[in-house]
Amino acid sequence: MYRTHTCGELRLQHKGQPVTLAGWVQRIRNLGGMTFIDLRDRYGITQLTVNDDSPSGVKETAAMLGREFVLQTTGTVLERSNKNPKITTGDIEIGVTGITVLNVANTPPFTIEDESDGGEELRARYRYLDLRRNPLQKAIHLRHRMAQEVRKYLDSQRFLEIETPFLIKSTPEGARDFVVPSRMNPGEFYALPQSPQTFKQLLMVAGYDRYFQIVRCFRDEDLRADRQPEFTQIDCEMAFVEREDILQTFEGLARHLFKSVLGIEWVADFPRISYADAMNNYGSDKPDIRFDMRINDLTDAVKGKNFILFDSAEYIGGICIKGCADYTRKQLDELTEWVKRPQIGAKGLVYIRWTADGIKSSIDKFYTTDELSVIAAKCRATQGDLILLLSGDKKKTLEMIGSLRIEMGNRLGLRPNNVYAPLWVYDFPLLEWDDETQRFYAMHHPFTSPKPEDLPKFYSANRHDITQVNANAYDFVLNGVEIGGGSIRIHDSGVQRRMFEVLGFSEEEANYKFGFIINAFRYGAPPHGGIAFGFDRWCALFGGQETIRDYIAFPKNNTGRDVMLDAPSKIDEEQMKELYLKSVKSEA
Amino acid sequence: MYRTHTCGELRLQHKGQPVTLAGWVQRIRNLGGMTFIDLRDRYGITQLTVNDDSPSGVKETAAMLGREFVLQTTGTVLERSNKNPKITTGDIEIGVTGITVLNVANTPPFTIEDESDGGEELRARYRYLDLRRNPLQKAIHLRHRMAQEVRKYLDSQRFLEIETPFLIKSTPEGARDFVVPSRMNPGEFYALPQSPQTFKQLLMVAGYDRYFQIVRCFRDEDLRADRQPEFTQIDCEMAFVEREDILQTFEGLARHLFKSVLGIEWVADFPRISYADAMNNYGSDKPDIRFDMRINDLTDAVKGKNFILFDSAEYIGGICIKGCADYTRKQLDELTEWVKRPQIGAKGLVYIRWTADGIKSSIDKFYTTDELSVIAAKCRATQGDLILLLSGDKKKTLEMIGSLRIEMGNRLGLRPNNVYAPLWVYDFPLLEWDDETQRFYAMHHPFTSPKPEDLPKFYSANRHDITQVNANAYDFVLNGVEIGGGSIRIHDSGVQRRMFEVLGFSEEEANYKFGFIINAFRYGAPPHGGIAFGFDRWCALFGGQETIRDYIAFPKNNTGRDVMLDAPSKIDEEQMKELYLKSVKSEA
Repeated sequence: MYRTHTCGELRLQHKGQPVTLAGWVQRIRNLGGMTFIDLRDRYGITQLTVNDDSPSGVKETAAMLGREFVLQTTGTVLERSNKNPKITTGDIEIGVTGITVLNVANTPPFTIEDESDGGEELRARYRYLDLRRNPLQKAIHLRHRMAQEVRKYLDSQRFLEIETPFLIKSTPEGARDFVVPSRMNPGEFYALPQSPQTFKQLLMVAGYDRYFQIVRCFRDEDLRADRQPEFTQIDCEMAFVEREDILQTFEGLARHLFKSVLGIEWVADFPRISYADAMNNYGSDKPDIRFDMRINDLTDAVKGKNFILFDSAEYIGGICIKGCADYTRKQLDELTEWVKRPQIGAKGLVYIRWTADGIKSSIDKFYTTDELSVIAAKCRATQGDLILLLSGDKKKTLEMIGSLRIEMGNRLGLRPNNVYAPLWVYDFPLLEWDDETQRFYAMHHPFTSPKPEDLPKFYSANRHDITQVNANAYDFVLNGVEIGGGSIRIHDSGVQRRMFEVLGFSEEEANYKFGFIINAFRYGAPPHGGIAFGFDRWCALFGGQETIRDYIAFPKNNTGRDVMLDAPSKIDEEQMKELYLKSVKSEA
Repeated sequence: MYRTHTCGELRLQHKGQPVTLAGWVQRIRNLGGMTFIDLRDRYGITQLTVNDDSPSGVKETAAMLGREFVLQTTGTVLERSNKNPKITTGDIEIGVTGITVLNVANTPPFTIEDESDGGEELRARYRYLDLRRNPLQKAIHLRHRMAQEVRKYLDSQRFLEIETPFLIKSTPEGARDFVVPSRMNPGEFYALPQSPQTFKQLLMVAGYDRYFQIVRCFRDEDLRADRQPEFTQIDCEMAFVEREDILQTFEGLARHLFKSVLGIEWVADFPRISYADAMNNYGSDKPDIRFDMRINDLTDAVKGKNFILFDSAEYIGGICIKGCADYTRKQLDELTEWVKRPQIGAKGLVYIRWTADGIKSSIDKFYTTDELSVIAAKCRATQGDLILLLSGDKKKTLEMIGSLRIEMGNRLGLRPNNVYAPLWVYDFPLLEWDDETQRFYAMHHPFTSPKPEDLPKFYSANRHDITQVNANAYDFVLNGVEIGGGSIRIHDSGVQRRMFEVLGFSEEEANYKFGFIINAFRYGAPPHGGIAFGFDRWCALFGGQETIRDYIAFPKNNTGRDVMLDAPSKIDEEQMKELYLKSVKSEA
């Protein structure tokens, strides 16, 4: 061992002790007769002191050190005269008696500090140096802790961690599958799994009852901001359970993580909300309930006053922004521009301000003060509040107000990243009708069970009835981010047949697409259901971030490249030949 | 929840309690007025009893049940009159008051019993049914336990579990890499990692100090018996350590697993043996030391007696088989045939038998009884023993005797699978000279450090000296199976340069092949080293098996196929087009 202690370990109680440390040079301060060297490792920073009385070899070595040199040093723990309360080792320093340079270092291309001077691209290229920075060390450490605690909890609940294969079969609808040519089976390909969905259901058929895995998944698709072609899921499945059992079990997991990782004890049950209520109240299927600011349906209250914009709208909704009645015209214009951006797509913004001077609005022409008061009351506004209204097609308008709500939450600091609001969302629609192809699509996947009470509608010949069927599905939402989702699966072959019928698959087609799991289900499938959590994102949220890249040791950029490795890349002709493959020119 | 208890849980203490169970029908015995149903889940088997007094609905349902039907049943815990001590629930049975068939099942294509009547191919096709069998349930459970305990120990030793990417860059010598075409980067490929070697070394450069991961690795090569194209490693790396630290740390891991998984407390230090001693004493670099039967060098003792076979041989070695002097001529002929098989390749076998009648041998013509006694003494034989001798080229002969030793161990029952003999092997040769290409090859990889004391030889201009350099490398061997291997890495750029020079790489070539890690090493690489364990095989050995397939939930066969999924398989022309790929005909 090159050290007796780490750089984060020594305290006043070690005073006088001879120690050996090893680490990287964080900083060197040369004050004439004294040289202070901050030595860094994963555990902290310890100050080394070299002065006129130090051995001459030590002084010589200290004089030629540079940032990020790797040192081994021996010395004695001394009490500092100038204590530094900002670091845990701030009460002591090491009076150096020996220094060995274990390795020299080129000057790093950016500073290894909490706030680096390096751009994103540069830091990505030297990821191994970026990973030395404290925020990333913290992120990677948090992720480690999360993973250990996830397993500890699930193991204690008798879940078995079972590894499923990465080299699987491409599904007929696997447009997003990464494929892997097989040298031993010329012309044939494996696929990398988008999730272990099939395997976990097979494990339930096999009797494994409670399965989990922290597992890499792959998706070859255009990367929206903050998506990765490979990402990690906490993947879980249980047999002989109903929805309530799954929610209880994984609320338990979340509670355990809150407590063990963040030290937050969660006493109350997590709130639950139906998809319909989430849309109506928050304009989102993943509401951030750290702040209230609910959407109020004003449709009935505002119609019939000859304001054509409202009279012609399917829906009018409003949110009350507490204490913002003093917004200036300029601020309101800017908000109007904000909602009119293509990402939101509103035509305009109506406002009502309730100041000490009374209620004023941008629609005073059409509404009396009394009528505005009614609207304000419906929005639970009081004096000092601002009300913002949008109108149009119901679903779209709700989503627009939902986005505006989040924006106002951000502007007003109502979304602090150290406050947590978990939430279950349930009763999602099972199917979505697509006008273009004139068929239903499964919102999740074709093995998602309808809610038992909706089965009559599911068997109805009426398309509208079928639209009304809810899935026995649920999402776990944290601070407005969906970090988990799952469902009770169909285990009844009659219901499964009906599902394929509704989706417009012939028996032949269903067998072609899903034959192998349908076959497995013929040998005694238990009732089962599960959930999968986005592990990268959960870690990021617990770390107080919304972006996941810092929580992945070696992430890819948003064109799917690893710029450190320079991957993907061309491969040898020789290798192509061995795989019986030829590249063809892009048609673009 | 569909049950109040599992099928492995109820005992006499639950007598009289109303319970609900769920599981699969293992067996139905209809004894006229009584029907016994064995209900099975992952936790055990519980007997359900239906008799003349049972509700008529129950009797009707019981009459139509088949094997592997999925049931939910309610009833009362009763004391059995005929107790079954073989199962943990054998003192009780359930007096059934209700049965619901949760799912019917086709008759499985083979029996779901400890010993199934299904062939390997058939069971592979229905892996989800094979996984219901008790031996596989036990194997998967053991693997789960192993994984949890590995993490528990390493976490307690401050190792961080850090996930490394699966979509990486193909190495220029990556003939065995699986590659993955990228849709977003036409004509370019990722590669799947053969191991996270580069990344773990980068993590040491990044300061993470103690890293581990239980991680899938991929190798696209002809599969020898019991190899898988995807396999799992416990991958570990440490910084600021020397060999001794690594051996201590991972001996600690093995101890923890022995204790927590097998209940075996290991008091003594694990034995250690150098590669040279392992070869000389056991004819293997991974000796099974559950039994002694060491190889004795008889070269000096047998030469010069005009026996041309020995006189012309570089080396003559012998093993003493205790108590086997009474082997018949037929048995000895059969052994001779065994060593002459091409897999072993010996020209013949010389034996010496020390019976009550004295010492007799197949070489009596050349050796006096006294001379044979000397040989016997050198082999530590006593009356009743058989000595077997092989001769020829030293290295080959040692390996042949090593194989014969294992064979005799098997025949004599000296290798019981519930006895464990861990062993460290160290001081492997660093480099291997290849006559054909007239160059040295790294035995492990070009980042493996030479032993410090061998550095003068490493810098020698003499080829023979270089051959004598030992690597600072080590293997962990259990019962004659190598389950772990690693090394201290080179962190000194001068030593690394010399390594490339010895390997015959120009600086340009070295940069082309390894530039990216060489570059990382310029920014302050700490001394570091690591080890990787074959997790599949370790699990199998702890389960008392030498084959790994039962310890992998969904394994591939020995042509790399998943016969359950039928993967790999052809993919759509459409998908090929999107990947800018074309299949070309095999040249065979």
